Amino acid sequence: MANSITAYDTIAAISTPPGEGGISIVRLSGDEAIQIAQRVFKGKDLAKVASHTINYGHIIDPTNQDVVDEVMVSVMRAPKTYTREDVIEINCHGGIVDTNRILQLLLSHGARMAEPGEFTKRAFLNGRIDLTQAESVMDLIRAKTDKAMQVAVDQLDGSLSHLIKHLRQDIFSVLGQEEVNIDYPEYEMDEVTGKMMLEKATEVRDHLQQLMKTANQGKILREGLATAIIGRPNVGKSSLLNYLLHEDKAIVTDVAGTTRDTLEEYVNVRGVPLKLVDTAGIHHTMDKVEKIGVERSRKALSQADLVLLVLDASAPLQSDDRELLKATKDKKRIILLNKTDLPAQIRPANLEAVVTDDTLIIPVSILKTDGLDRLEAAIAKLFFDEGIENSQSNVLVTNARQYGLLAQAKTALDDVITGLQNDVPLDLVQIDMTTAWEKMGEVVGENAPDELITQLFSQFCLGK
Amino acid sequence: MANSITAYDTIAAISTPPGEGGISIVRLSGDEAIQIAQRVFKGKDLAKVASHTINYGHIIDPTNQDVVDEVMVSVMRAPKTYTREDVIEINCHGGIVDTNRILQLLLSHGARMAEPGEFTKRAFLNGRIDLTQAESVMDLIRAKTDKAMQVAVDQLDGSLSHLIKHLRQDIFSVLGQEEVNIDYPEYEMDEVTGKMMLEKATEVRDHLQQLMKTANQGKILREGLATAIIGRPNVGKSSLLNYLLHEDKAIVTDVAGTTRDTLEEYVNVRGVPLKLVDTAGIHHTMDKVEKIGVERSRKALSQADLVLLVLDASAPLQSDDRELLKATKDKKRIILLNKTDLPAQIRPANLEAVVTDDTLIIPVSILKTDGLDRLEAAIAKLFFDEGIENSQSNVLVTNARQYGLLAQAKTALDDVITGLQNDVPLDLVQIDMTTAWEKMGEVVGENAPDELITQLFSQFCLGK
Repeated sequence: MANSITAYDTIAAISTPPGEGGISIVRLSGDEAIQIAQRVFKGKDLAKVASHTINYGHIIDPTNQDVVDEVMVSVMRAPKTYTREDVIEINCHGGIVDTNRILQLLLSHGARMAEPGEFTKRAFLNGRIDLTQAESVMDLIRAKTDKAMQVAVDQLDGSLSHLIKHLRQDIFSVLGQEEVNIDYPEYEMDEVTGKMMLEKATEVRDHLQQLMKTANQGKILREGLATAIIGRPNVGKSSLLNYLLHEDKAIVTDVAGTTRDTLEEYVNVRGVPLKLVDTAGIHHTMDKVEKIGVERSRKALSQADLVLLVLDASAPLQSDDRELLKATKDKKRIILLNKTDLPAQIRPANLEAVVTDDTLIIPVSILKTDGLDRLEAAIAKLFFDEGIENSQSNVLVTNARQYGLLAQAKTALDDVITGLQNDVPLDLVQIDMTTAWEKMGEVVGENAPDELITQLFSQFCLGK
Repeated sequence: MANSITAYDTIAAISTPPGEGGISIVRLSGDEAIQIAQRVFKGKDLAKVASHTINYGHIIDPTNQDVVDEVMVSVMRAPKTYTREDVIEINCHGGIVDTNRILQLLLSHGARMAEPGEFTKRAFLNGRIDLTQAESVMDLIRAKTDKAMQVAVDQLDGSLSHLIKHLRQDIFSVLGQEEVNIDYPEYEMDEVTGKMMLEKATEVRDHLQQLMKTANQGKILREGLATAIIGRPNVGKSSLLNYLLHEDKAIVTDVAGTTRDTLEEYVNVRGVPLKLVDTAGIHHTMDKVEKIGVERSRKALSQADLVLLVLDASAPLQSDDRELLKATKDKKRIILLNKTDLPAQIRPANLEAVVTDDTLIIPVSILKTDGLDRLEAAIAKLFFDEGIENSQSNVLVTNARQYGLLAQAKTALDDVITGLQNDVPLDLVQIDMTTAWEKMGEVVGENAPDELITQLFSQFCLGK
């Protein structure tokens, strides 16, 4: 890799999720991983066991010979490891106190506490994975639905890297061609080369354009589609929320490193993760007459990518309803005409005067779970229609960093195309072509600046 | 073992704590563990790899060939495994969705979902560990302090089992002696035998008595000393709580399987785990003028083993203070005379009229953290003084089951002693001696009834 850090110390961290469980793992990576583990281990001589073996024994506090835990120690020697360094995994009884004690012992016997994401950072710096693969590791861990997981696993397997490398190869082939022409001027193949360059630049540019169209899908899969359920009091918001939170759809997730006050609620609607906005407000009013009203709805609106506006079809349209219809008119929204089990006072046709765009209006009875299939289908369609051919495969642009670089590469290719069409000399066009090639290289982590690397891995969880 | 279950199916569970982390483990145990894992694994042929090796590969959904995750699979063949059966551990990227998907794949390819504690139950049923060792596994996982962990680790290592087995051997030796006498009546050694029996019975009974005295300590180490901080408003309860929750003392633990509303707070005071009672009430009033008062204190009192009663030394004793002093007079309590940084209105001597027993009164300034060392020392002393010689070692009776059986054994030995002193015939005394021997056997799990086993392991966490 271009990054010039060469000697690494040995790092340690608890790699399993925090809490009580059947098994916890304390992981070490670095030149001294095996030696450091041996200092607190009573069992076989780890320096002598074969690589990729599991070894029974005890962790001992050398200062007082206390037995800290009964463990299985996995020894994995470089280079066939997660980090490409020597790796030790201490598999212990999953208590909080004993796991922390083991970590402390390792830290006081030569290891340094790993930073968040530092194991994966080393996998990247040591050239085992590229930057899109590193990014996919966290996407995989945080995946909220099967679809999100599949995209992350494919990216981890190199799907995006391969595509990028393939496109770069295309550019490189004509850049090479150009250099041949410069070295052998007697051939005067400028015209031929110009044609080839135009062809390749256009081809790659079109590919990038397609790829960039997947960015919004990628973002939604990673972060969830921020969805607000709004409506005036007592139209059925709580019931809708309850419906979404049941039926195996709920994915309640603690956000790493935060307290329980910031618990986020996700639901899985046909593979699309919805991140529910302001459900605390709705929960809060659950058992009482639903109080959450227009004011609160407005607030939720500002954070939402998708609005589910609930109207009560059994009552005439009220001024609050009109206000919310107006407030959401520039948002991606679906209108639910609820309470179809009661005599109707509003029909879809009645709304046409107010809703002049092509907003989808779905009559439902949340109480009888009538029409909610259509709602789910509509949400899934919203998501999948955004993608293009590419969405069938799992190659998606999954974050703003990737998108930004691809956009720069595309701009450079646009310049190449315009230049060639306007007979700009080939050696000038070549500069833009090279820029495109470089920017695409940065996507997979070539010449990535240290600050970017630091910032990127700091978002990882501890122990990964 | 006496338990007659002989053929086990293959079980699977997620063995790491729930949540997002660097690594999660899905574990399989049983005759078909390796075959079932192979059905969803792409990599080496697991049936052919050596035992205790780690194997790189991918988990694949056989129905559609989707790659579910990149994994390391540990293959451990019977009998040198946790359960003494074939064990597979699938070490995967620690996401919630992918880990669950792997578990589901195993369940749909031949494994059964493990019950809580079922891996450890098999370790017991297959004779790898006895019942006190099995119990210590959960004690270790739930340990709140180093001391608690040390007791659990020692018990897992067999410290209690060895003591019990040693004492049983003592009984057995004289029971054997008696049988010799019956077989060889010509020796007429009744008198000699009676003397030996009395000696051994007394010796073992005294040992049991010592051991039973450790039960309260054992209980506190396992469950924490339920501690209530009480006092009238604004005497400094919040500050005391804050002090205890800082300084690396806090051990906030989610109770397995419950929601965040029942979060319990523990603090580690010199190795003694205090389980704080009704801290929610105190927290709630933290930022306001402290409202939690006498009524709430009374409620907290009923759940507490130890009461920390806070008085404001800078104000005269008030009727509410007197009420709380009276309400706690039969409780284990420590009185904190807070705000010694202000001019004193109450001195320890002033309290003597009200506090006529030997309750410890400690003048403190929680604000200046003055005197809090004495409080900590007092709590530790309360705990360690309860133990006897035995508390120096880590052999403790850690639960009610063990205590109950030891108490029955002791009663039987008391009967032996009384019988011998009253010239009851040896063959009758022998019956009580045998009962003691049997009850002590039940402590380590001999002849344990199925219902007990089921009930005991059901308290374990999933995946253990």
